[in-house]
Amino acid sequence: MLFKRGCMNKEIILTGDRPTGPLHLGHFVGSLQSRVRLQESHKQFVMIADVQALTDNYDNPQKVRDNVLEVALDYLAVGIDPSKTTIFIQSCLPQIPELTLYYLNLVTMNRLKHNPTVKLEIRQKGFGDSVTAGFMTYPVSQAADITAFKASIVPVGEDQKPMIEQTNEIVRNFNRIYKKPVLVECKAVVPTFSRLPGIDGGGKMSKSLNNAIFLKDDENVLKKKVKKMYTDPNHLRVEDPGQVEGNPVFTYLDAFGSDRGKIQDLKDHYQRGGLGDSIVKNYLFEVLNEFLEPIRKRREQFAKDPKEVFQILKKGTEIAYEKAEKTLDEVKSVMCLKY
Amino acid sequence: MLFKRGCMNKEIILTGDRPTGPLHLGHFVGSLQSRVRLQESHKQFVMIADVQALTDNYDNPQKVRDNVLEVALDYLAVGIDPSKTTIFIQSCLPQIPELTLYYLNLVTMNRLKHNPTVKLEIRQKGFGDSVTAGFMTYPVSQAADITAFKASIVPVGEDQKPMIEQTNEIVRNFNRIYKKPVLVECKAVVPTFSRLPGIDGGGKMSKSLNNAIFLKDDENVLKKKVKKMYTDPNHLRVEDPGQVEGNPVFTYLDAFGSDRGKIQDLKDHYQRGGLGDSIVKNYLFEVLNEFLEPIRKRREQFAKDPKEVFQILKKGTEIAYEKAEKTLDEVKSVMCLKY
Repeated sequence: MLFKRGCMNKEIILTGDRPTGPLHLGHFVGSLQSRVRLQESHKQFVMIADVQALTDNYDNPQKVRDNVLEVALDYLAVGIDPSKTTIFIQSCLPQIPELTLYYLNLVTMNRLKHNPTVKLEIRQKGFGDSVTAGFMTYPVSQAADITAFKASIVPVGEDQKPMIEQTNEIVRNFNRIYKKPVLVECKAVVPTFSRLPGIDGGGKMSKSLNNAIFLKDDENVLKKKVKKMYTDPNHLRVEDPGQVEGNPVFTYLDAFGSDRGKIQDLKDHYQRGGLGDSIVKNYLFEVLNEFLEPIRKRREQFAKDPKEVFQILKKGTEIAYEKAEKTLDEVKSVMCLKY
Repeated sequence: MLFKRGCMNKEIILTGDRPTGPLHLGHFVGSLQSRVRLQESHKQFVMIADVQALTDNYDNPQKVRDNVLEVALDYLAVGIDPSKTTIFIQSCLPQIPELTLYYLNLVTMNRLKHNPTVKLEIRQKGFGDSVTAGFMTYPVSQAADITAFKASIVPVGEDQKPMIEQTNEIVRNFNRIYKKPVLVECKAVVPTFSRLPGIDGGGKMSKSLNNAIFLKDDENVLKKKVKKMYTDPNHLRVEDPGQVEGNPVFTYLDAFGSDRGKIQDLKDHYQRGGLGDSIVKNYLFEVLNEFLEPIRKRREQFAKDPKEVFQILKKGTEIAYEKAEKTLDEVKSVMCLKY
């Protein structure tokens, strides 16, 4: 109810996640921690994007369903506070498909085909000619997500910037064609520390690459994952000088450690030679475990009562519904569709 | 409320019109007359397809809006009886965009690109590369229209058959993927006498070709239109033999005249020679005027009270809403989207 209590002048943020798996340290660094911060100063809508998840998981709806709860638990565990942030389930808002359908008239197929993000994803996922209409048009659906809340700030990865451009094109087209500034343009905000490498050092941390440390991983799982982490492949003997740049063990220490002095000492020592990987890893385990411990505890607490979690989602969804309904109402009004 | 009173075993028809202009004699012959007949034996939903009309009139929503009333008046004037037929406004049913979005995941872009009806229309309308995503995906939206009502019969023109194939493909995909026969396949029913030529003899009667006689045309307008009708261009002098085939004056007599003997005599005389166009046209005017007179009267009656007409549409829309909601509920249930 925050935005009802005279907070209308707070800037509105829309963000969210596709419920395709539990969230991991990469999510924390890339988005969750800034959400916890921004909920103090902004009106924040966090969407569990189950409809979007279905665009490439349409044949496995149970997976999406199960992960709605997982993602909600992760949100609550890291401190996204439902009294400050509106958490909602995308599929419960019929306004989004309605807006999507109207916006589809304002975008050419040519434009969609040349969306760099979609092009890349089609290649990565190997869709080729068999790409579905749902996947191809999801940038329009995203424009509906964002504009339904009149969000002016959308935190995204660098690779998602074309999505925001597409949204703003739709906003400008709509406002011009229907002669009233009903929709609001938004700004992409790219986090400075946006990408955490996976424990394999290979690429972005990701569930599908099997290189993630999940927020819900217990102590044993965490220990095993840290133990098998990729470090400097040329650091063969303890006495050899090792590399710190591109070494995920140190990247994680930078991201999650608080004792800057100790971390700097370890880095210097590692670079000089004489510091074994296992010592650094033991310390990293301690740091991560200390970081995850309270998150795990809160998560377990909420997980005991999924009904209560769904009650939180229901309340958030009601607030989101009301806001989206207001926008749809204005949209239908300028489109002469009010009966 | 018909389908509630133990009429569940009646076959369900979905049909409708895009509200882009008032209806004409071509509509009467092609669809309206059979709707008046079928409402006695079937559960019939007639949709005023304003959302579909917007796909290529998105920049002129007032035109679509105005014609919702025009089309409704035409329906009531020809005898579509709201106590037997459910007349509703498409844009008032949020279930249709929701279903559309889910179905978009079940159709490849490739498939849409090769839809013969859409390909032809893109060429006819000169869209080329600038075709919008809304226009390109409208067959999926149509599948949502049809399946929302579990319609098993869809009256269509020959050229619209690929739309029904596309719908049935979606139905089969959906039922297979979600492992429950929630959706119902439909049958295209092509009327035997489906196309009325325009008064210019050029092609199909159509508002945009400016060759239509509207159901609401008054006596004077009708007289002028019949007078300037295209006949046999080689029938230069009264004594010349004239052609009856492809001569719209005789086509209209066949469609609207009841005195079969007299019409046959006129045809024979015309073919022999010695019968002037103006005599046949005068007779056609009489026939059409007699046909249109009661329609005009009922139309004027309803037009006096547009509020009452919208009340009728509101009632129909409520019934349609309930039916579509039931289908959406089943769809979301098998897609694990019920919260």
